Amino acid sequence: MQDDRYRRGLEQLEIVAGPYGAEVIRSLEDIAPDLGRYIIEFAYGDIFARPGLDLKTRELTTVAALTAMGTAAPQLKVHLQAASRVGATRQEIVETILQVIPYAGFPAALNAVAIARDVFAAE
Amino acid sequence: MQDDRYRRGLEQLEIVAGPYGAEVIRSLEDIAPDLGRYIIEFAYGDIFARPGLDLKTRELTTVAALTAMGTAAPQLKVHLQAASRVGATRQEIVETILQVIPYAGFPAALNAVAIARDVFAAE
Amino acid sequence: MQDDRYRRGLEQLEIVAGPYGAEVIRSLEDIAPDLGRYIIEFAYGDIFARPGLDLKTRELTTVAALTAMGTAAPQLKVHLQAASRVGATRQEIVETILQVIPYAGFPAALNAVAIARDVFAAE
Amino acid sequence: MQDDRYRRGLEQLEIVAGPYGAEVIRSLEDIAPDLGRYIIEFAYGDIFARPGLDLKTRELTTVAALTAMGTAAPQLKVHLQAASRVGATRQEIVETILQVIPYAGFPAALNAVAIARDVFAAE
Amino acid sequence: MQDDRYRRGLEQLEIVAGPYGAEVIRSLEDIAPDLGRYIIEFAYGDIFARPGLDLKTRELTTVAALTAMGTAAPQLKVHLQAASRVGATRQEIVETILQVIPYAGFPAALNAVAIARDVFAAE
Amino acid sequence: MQDDRYRRGLEQLEIVAGPYGAEVIRSLEDIAPDLGRYIIEFAYGDIFARPGLDLKTRELTTVAALTAMGTAAPQLKVHLQAASRVGATRQEIVETILQVIPYAGFPAALNAVAIARDVFAAE
Repeated sequence: MQDDRYRRGLEQLEIVAGPYGAEVIRSLEDIAPDLGRYIIEFAYGDIFARPGLDLKTRELTTVAALTAMGTAAPQLKVHLQAASRVGATRQEIVETILQVIPYAGFPAALNAVAIARDVFAAE
Repeated sequence: MQDDRYRRGLEQLEIVAGPYGAEVIRSLEDIAPDLGRYIIEFAYGDIFARPGLDLKTRELTTVAALTAMGTAAPQLKVHLQAASRVGATRQEIVETILQVIPYAGFPAALNAVAIARDVFAAE
Repeated sequence: MQDDRYRRGLEQLEIVAGPYGAEVIRSLEDIAPDLGRYIIEFAYGDIFARPGLDLKTRELTTVAALTAMGTAAPQLKVHLQAASRVGATRQEIVETILQVIPYAGFPAALNAVAIARDVFAAE
Repeated sequence: MQDDRYRRGLEQLEIVAGPYGAEVIRSLEDIAPDLGRYIIEFAYGDIFARPGLDLKTRELTTVAALTAMGTAAPQLKVHLQAASRVGATRQEIVETILQVIPYAGFPAALNAVAIARDVFAAE
Repeated sequence: MQDDRYRRGLEQLEIVAGPYGAEVIRSLEDIAPDLGRYIIEFAYGDIFARPGLDLKTRELTTVAALTAMGTAAPQLKVHLQAASRVGATRQEIVETILQVIPYAGFPAALNAVAIARDVFAAE
Repeated sequence: MQDDRYRRGLEQLEIVAGPYGAEVIRSLEDIAPDLGRYIIEFAYGDIFARPGLDLKTRELTTVAALTAMGTAAPQLKVHLQAASRVGATRQEIVETILQVIPYAGFPAALNAVAIARDVFAAE
């Protein structure tokens, strides 16, 4: 059954992150391979693969959480790309960042928008 | 034009928070009335009233942000109620909280679920 | 294999949290049963059960992390009890909290000590 | 010389916190007496007693920091009282809390104002 | 009246941030122009322009808040420059950063001092 | 007696950080020399030199706290090196980072592992 989680997670990871996902996992192989496995199995195989919320909403809520936290720039970049990949428009992504302002303040939104600019420019 | 923002904000606040919104604002009148005014004008009149993202998604991203922050229990309660009020099902609300686990950890989700239990019980 | 993770996690949870662990899990059954399951399978079955670090050190590093975060009072209480249960002395627990002061400040330590006082008094 | 720091710190603590300061320190005697000593020696004897910034500004910047952090309600209460004690008016205290909104968001300010209301009512 | 807020905010922004302020706003035009407008109207037109606290104290409390948060390096840089521009001495700025140590720890202060060094060197 | 704290702190700092410690302190001399002095006297002379917890456990709990906070990359680097210097194996260091995942989430662990990779490569 763990293999099911791993296979399902890898599939989800590719849907939301494309080839970049596998690259992140590979980059962990030398130092903390189980960290990569947990991300696949738990974050993607258990959580992302759940029913009850469509992938676009999952990605937008993830963007909101990471924007509010302000401590996860590399991961916010991955999920800004992922949001776009699963169908969120640039307007929806920017709106999600603006929605966080009243709760976490302008710096959180400014730093997220700076990452979004790079992501949009690279698309 | 400021009156427009205030009127639009008060309307939005009532849509998402019902009579509770006005109550929060009133409770600020004795000590920081402008804080209440800014919440109406900026958080609701400027941000919530923006086009480009439906109210349910706005509330779910707000729930995700406040869950991840972990420092805003009273406000998370308001927005768990609001999410429900603008059409999110209990399943969608719980899914949004679970989606935050990989990014902000189990305590953030556990504390949000404890508040959600109270909100659901009171409905 | 998932059953293995669940069984191993439940066993670990009982070792570190005693009957209280199962109680927390049960309390989630009405609203987010999968959250309880993930805590058992991932937090305890995957992470806590790993080799390479003894249980006492796992609990003391957990106490340090939760003290520094300052957003997880109920979970800090559980792990202060758990640290004691797996063999940390009160002195080691208090030292761990004091060790966090230079990194996260006095309020984080003061609030953790207040919880530790309740835990020690109840033992 | 350590005695100097302790004496100077105790003096500063009484200036900013009145009898309440000694009470907090006493409450730590049973469980972490050195924590109380460090607060007196380092926070008050070393930092608060420094020249270069008047006590009122020290307290207002402390109120701003604790409001923004959102994880230190008991300590924010102490410093809202202290700000008042060293000469900040209620308006200056409320203005300091409002000044934090653009940087840390409305929940941080709302929760600080709720504590300020209690402090002002008890004066 | 919104024009009043915008004009007042732009004026305040120039007082505290000089030509740099307008530059930040311009940099948002391609991706989130309303974010720039909200910063001018709300952060500067509504909050900074309030009476009851002088600009130097507003900037020092902002420096304290951003130092404590530790998630807003680019914005801390802007406000270290602004504090200096509205009359805070380097000593007052450094004292404000040191004042945050007991509440948010040494890393927050060390990272803020590193930014202050760059700001002072460029002046 | 303050000289005792300074001498004891400098000694501890060299034990845990080697020549790098003195370098950090020197780098503060131009802008905030007292900050360097407080780190030596308080963080190392008062806290690190305490009995009741061995140095390896002090460093691992510090790594856990800084990993969970996510706002102290330069300091986390210092303490990943220090953990290694006082006898923690790479496995124990990586395990400590993984232990933080359930409490602070994957981004905190991923960013800590990225720093650990650099530290291990430079050894």
